[in-house]
Amino acid sequence: MHHHKNTPESPIGIFDSGVGGLTVVRAIQAILPSERIIYFGDTARVPYGSKSQVTIRKYAQEDTAILMRYQPKMIIVACNTVSALALDVVRKAGGSIPALGVLEAGAELAVSVSRQKRIGVIGTQATVCSNAYACAINELDPDIEVHSKACPLFVPLAEEGFTDHPAARLIAGEYLREFDGHEIDTLVLGCTHYPILRGMIGQTVGPGIRIIDSAEAVARRAKELLAETGMLGMSGETPRPHLLVSDLPQKFGMLYRLFMGSDVPDVELVDV
Amino acid sequence: MHHHKNTPESPIGIFDSGVGGLTVVRAIQAILPSERIIYFGDTARVPYGSKSQVTIRKYAQEDTAILMRYQPKMIIVACNTVSALALDVVRKAGGSIPALGVLEAGAELAVSVSRQKRIGVIGTQATVCSNAYACAINELDPDIEVHSKACPLFVPLAEEGFTDHPAARLIAGEYLREFDGHEIDTLVLGCTHYPILRGMIGQTVGPGIRIIDSAEAVARRAKELLAETGMLGMSGETPRPHLLVSDLPQKFGMLYRLFMGSDVPDVELVDV
Repeated sequence: MHHHKNTPESPIGIFDSGVGGLTVVRAIQAILPSERIIYFGDTARVPYGSKSQVTIRKYAQEDTAILMRYQPKMIIVACNTVSALALDVVRKAGGSIPALGVLEAGAELAVSVSRQKRIGVIGTQATVCSNAYACAINELDPDIEVHSKACPLFVPLAEEGFTDHPAARLIAGEYLREFDGHEIDTLVLGCTHYPILRGMIGQTVGPGIRIIDSAEAVARRAKELLAETGMLGMSGETPRPHLLVSDLPQKFGMLYRLFMGSDVPDVELVDV
Repeated sequence: MHHHKNTPESPIGIFDSGVGGLTVVRAIQAILPSERIIYFGDTARVPYGSKSQVTIRKYAQEDTAILMRYQPKMIIVACNTVSALALDVVRKAGGSIPALGVLEAGAELAVSVSRQKRIGVIGTQATVCSNAYACAINELDPDIEVHSKACPLFVPLAEEGFTDHPAARLIAGEYLREFDGHEIDTLVLGCTHYPILRGMIGQTVGPGIRIIDSAEAVARRAKELLAETGMLGMSGETPRPHLLVSDLPQKFGMLYRLFMGSDVPDVELVDV
């Protein structure tokens, strides 16, 4: 294996199946404003959630290899599906580079805040069917009761910018009614798109339920780990993220603005 | 090029980026019940609409090659994106086999029924941005005014089975308000998923507007062409379609039932 010397100035590499992982970029920038970020969105092969485990593990390996070209000091898997099914592949492909998954971080934070030991999880069909959040949560604390609900319309609603639309509220009400009577005190947003709908989701479930944003959770874990290993970036300004995509979706600019609240920097096309 | 002898007993090959093209299978079975059908859904690489033209043309070539293994007597492109951007690639890869595209058939039928010469088209963002329906319609009749509207939430609403849900009606009302004041008399369903929502769409636009289902339109064209070339199938029973997919989505069975109203036959996995 080819070794390179990581320094605190090396970038943090983040990848996702598409644009959703930008919520992780946003969360990293909020608490680690001096870090350089290299982001790869596999827009040619999005979505991963409906694909088989074999396919997802192959993609995870390739996506990691793309980031490794930029000699990152850490890899963050912003994709819940890859976190659930292929974090070991990423760790192997990353060699000595630490790799964090959004799912593990979200599960960990949820476990640490739930007092009633009843946690709700929402995500895509694939994430919910994989039962990965429930497994990760119960590995940390087997006494916690986990209730999950797939919300397949939340991603397209977020991408349409229907973040506060009456139809979105109707759909959210219907999906989240699933948790009535289960007395959850914590709800995990188990899909990187969902923070875009956080306000509406929070209003639907009411103020008694703590919302866990896995993107924020993984950003916190990244900060801890970088501090512990003496690898915190020291740059004075906030560098713009370096963006790579595997295909040129017309909507990348629009979605970047929706996720990040600013205009899109240059985007580089890479082959997969 | 390797030549094979087509007979009336050869199958009709149909491909789509995913499950949506099953509306074409349904339309073919309705008016050509004796035909054998081989269907390929590229579920590993769905959706095509957000990808670049170069990528789509590569996929179109590969998808056609998969169907050619089964020596079809005709190829139907059930994918609007491929019809718009790569029908020439399919025709070339198919050699002497005739190839029909869902888009051309839908445009042709719309032109033949519009009295006011004002046609509305709804489809995915990619189909609408490509302007392909407007081009195809104006190539047949340059005097027709075409108004288009992208309806990105219709595919996920259809796949969730929200075909008659209050939220779906709100969203449809908002999308289709675009046509108010344009006095269209014909509305083309420019996406293979939309026939699933046909009832709701029809009620939203009202009885004065003729709905054109491109899946039905291409089935009609297929019947004409087979009759003209003496290639109509003669089998006494309705054969079950032979289904190929490029990845195993958990939801294929559920979606097959939604699209076809019957249980899914065996599905074969092919590599792409």
